[in-house]
Amino acid sequence: MLNPKRDWKARARATRQAGRRLAGLTSARRRGLLEQVADALLENQPAILAANQLDVAEGAQAVREGRMSAALAARLQLSPGKLQTLAGGIRAIAAQPEPLGRELARRELAEGLVLQQLSVPLGVLLVVFEARPDALPQVAALALRSGNGLILKGGREAARSNQVLHSTICQALAGEVPEAVLTLAESRDDVGELLALDGLIDVVIPRGSGAMVRAIQDGTRIPVLGHAEGICHIYVDRTANFSQARQILLDAKTDYPAACNAVETVLLHEALVADDTATRLLEALRQAGVQLFGGPRACAALGLPAASSLHHEYSDLACAVELVADLDAAIDHIHRWGSGHTEAIVSEDPELIEEFLARVDAACVFANASTRFADGWRFGLGAEVGISTGRIHARGPVGVEGLLTSKWVLRGSGDTVGPFSRGERGFSHRELHGSG
Amino acid sequence: MLNPKRDWKARARATRQAGRRLAGLTSARRRGLLEQVADALLENQPAILAANQLDVAEGAQAVREGRMSAALAARLQLSPGKLQTLAGGIRAIAAQPEPLGRELARRELAEGLVLQQLSVPLGVLLVVFEARPDALPQVAALALRSGNGLILKGGREAARSNQVLHSTICQALAGEVPEAVLTLAESRDDVGELLALDGLIDVVIPRGSGAMVRAIQDGTRIPVLGHAEGICHIYVDRTANFSQARQILLDAKTDYPAACNAVETVLLHEALVADDTATRLLEALRQAGVQLFGGPRACAALGLPAASSLHHEYSDLACAVELVADLDAAIDHIHRWGSGHTEAIVSEDPELIEEFLARVDAACVFANASTRFADGWRFGLGAEVGISTGRIHARGPVGVEGLLTSKWVLRGSGDTVGPFSRGERGFSHRELHGSG
Repeated sequence: MLNPKRDWKARARATRQAGRRLAGLTSARRRGLLEQVADALLENQPAILAANQLDVAEGAQAVREGRMSAALAARLQLSPGKLQTLAGGIRAIAAQPEPLGRELARRELAEGLVLQQLSVPLGVLLVVFEARPDALPQVAALALRSGNGLILKGGREAARSNQVLHSTICQALAGEVPEAVLTLAESRDDVGELLALDGLIDVVIPRGSGAMVRAIQDGTRIPVLGHAEGICHIYVDRTANFSQARQILLDAKTDYPAACNAVETVLLHEALVADDTATRLLEALRQAGVQLFGGPRACAALGLPAASSLHHEYSDLACAVELVADLDAAIDHIHRWGSGHTEAIVSEDPELIEEFLARVDAACVFANASTRFADGWRFGLGAEVGISTGRIHARGPVGVEGLLTSKWVLRGSGDTVGPFSRGERGFSHRELHGSG
Repeated sequence: MLNPKRDWKARARATRQAGRRLAGLTSARRRGLLEQVADALLENQPAILAANQLDVAEGAQAVREGRMSAALAARLQLSPGKLQTLAGGIRAIAAQPEPLGRELARRELAEGLVLQQLSVPLGVLLVVFEARPDALPQVAALALRSGNGLILKGGREAARSNQVLHSTICQALAGEVPEAVLTLAESRDDVGELLALDGLIDVVIPRGSGAMVRAIQDGTRIPVLGHAEGICHIYVDRTANFSQARQILLDAKTDYPAACNAVETVLLHEALVADDTATRLLEALRQAGVQLFGGPRACAALGLPAASSLHHEYSDLACAVELVADLDAAIDHIHRWGSGHTEAIVSEDPELIEEFLARVDAACVFANASTRFADGWRFGLGAEVGISTGRIHARGPVGVEGLLTSKWVLRGSGDTVGPFSRGERGFSHRELHGSG
């Protein structure tokens, strides 16, 4: 007999059923559940921090033995302050406008025959994340708000923290929604089995390193929302305001170099070499500790060491620099070497700016702003599920919208297509006022 | 050296470039191109019909030799009337509101920092269709209107018709958009190579039999828009108006039995057996030539022969019948055996209707209307790319909307995230009035 904890087909079906129950609750009840979850996280703080302490201690040991990076270990740690922030974030998600049942379209097809398009949950989400246990309550809150069933796989390093967070949340839901609505997978083998369940799981959202995202994309037929690479460019035009260019480059590279929206390649208009603007910009980056590598033209003109590739995510205090002849060359470079994440121009020429914004094909295109703004929270989406460089379903920072689909609802009174085919009735196709 | 006609990587890249050129044209120019295409189809009518005649003759031969069904052969035939209709359809697509550059959101993030979300083309579409050559100009028109590059693979049976339609359209575009914008693949091997180009092709749209769609879904990592099965149900509640139930069942099964939106399973409330409503409904279907098969309860109570499976698409004048105890049982049956395409209820009880519409999880849910209304044209979407039973990106009948994605555009004046992190600036996240 199959171990019921390992029968993932049955468990995924149970998660879908539970999600349907959740989606059937009133908006007020779903908000109420989130408030209960926020309360429970604070009430259960001692148990959560105790479990987390064990993970943190094990992480520290792993760092000493060279099995874990200090950066990863640092992200393991929860604290009363972090739990406070988490609870506040969940209440903010609760306070967002109701995502379900929004009327995306309303149309009279013919007399007495009215069509609506309504927002509904996607169904079952699989979220796979590394290390950081704070992700669990955040993602759970987004799924609960949007009426989705959720299967979560956290990092092994945070196993105890994830277990106590999961059981805290499930207890807060008890009696109102079946526990299967929030299912925790614990082993790497589980992930392999889950990724094979196309048809039972509707979308996979990986949150972690590029290598982890690529491994998931390569190993499943389920649609994946996310990005493996953020190779962001900033093109500094000859018309750029020098001090804006300098502060944007510094912010985009040094504010958080490991972020996917940090700049990886700086494209400089070739005219900036002659009047030493290029040199001054690069000097500002160097002084901030940024290691610079050059494309072929920048190596020749500015004496930089050669970049190993122009399609490279440094994720560190390092970036590539290349010279381009004009806007066309900058756009060609971006389309050839970029990853379609976030691309920016610094320029004072309004026409040139509009051409860049119109022609560059990426999830986010910015003028005179740091690439670091590409973020769900900064974009005002409330909370972020992730940033997608795919073109299907959701693109760029994804909030609750990315966890929804729609359904078409038609109400008639015995209507059939025959009379329309025979020309006895005609379609009016009249748009009615939608609420969305 | 690679045969350049077979280097699909390079050709798909050229199609993307050409699509970008197309998307960069003004709305008026893209409309103008469609008008030119419509004109060209009519002007080139003699050559198109001559080529089509050869395909039709070969098809007739294949029917005689038992290599092709008469139904398939019938769909090969073009005519002056069909070309006239096609040209009219293309002009209607030209007249639709501009799909590109629509403002889906506009938000002030902070003073002087404004974010827009704009509709943009998906990029490169691969459309694979069987037999029917009329699909080529229709799909080409949708791609042109929405600024997408298109790679098309038509049925071998219509090879000559497709070639002449393709060259007619390319000539109409000549000089304004590179020919690669509309690329014709001709062999089955080509399809295999194309389906491997995830990253270069953004979406695959198969139009053909369920077997063909399944083969494509199983053979690619590129997202597939479409449906393999349309196992639609109609639940006739005990409160149904008899004559509405009868006409809806007849329309949904007999208007076009091979359509994906034809009904395949009729669910009858068990109370309809006692007062012989069930018998009268089934008799009406039988008289219309419909063969009936039963689920376990219908076999026992109504003496029907057993259906081989309740998850079966008859695509013919045949359907399954089952008895259910109540709404819950009907919904459970639909969720267990359906394909998430179109599900309908016939009832006079407003509360029951609303519960069915809210709880049934399918692309289309109808009350007191035939499942045959599930169609892009009938829904008022203009033209239909296909009907998707997937939940990602597009669900149900898909029009031009399904060929679009969005991009985020941010305009600032030297803005960086540092001051926000340090609490020196704050986000306003103020919704501005969007045009969309």
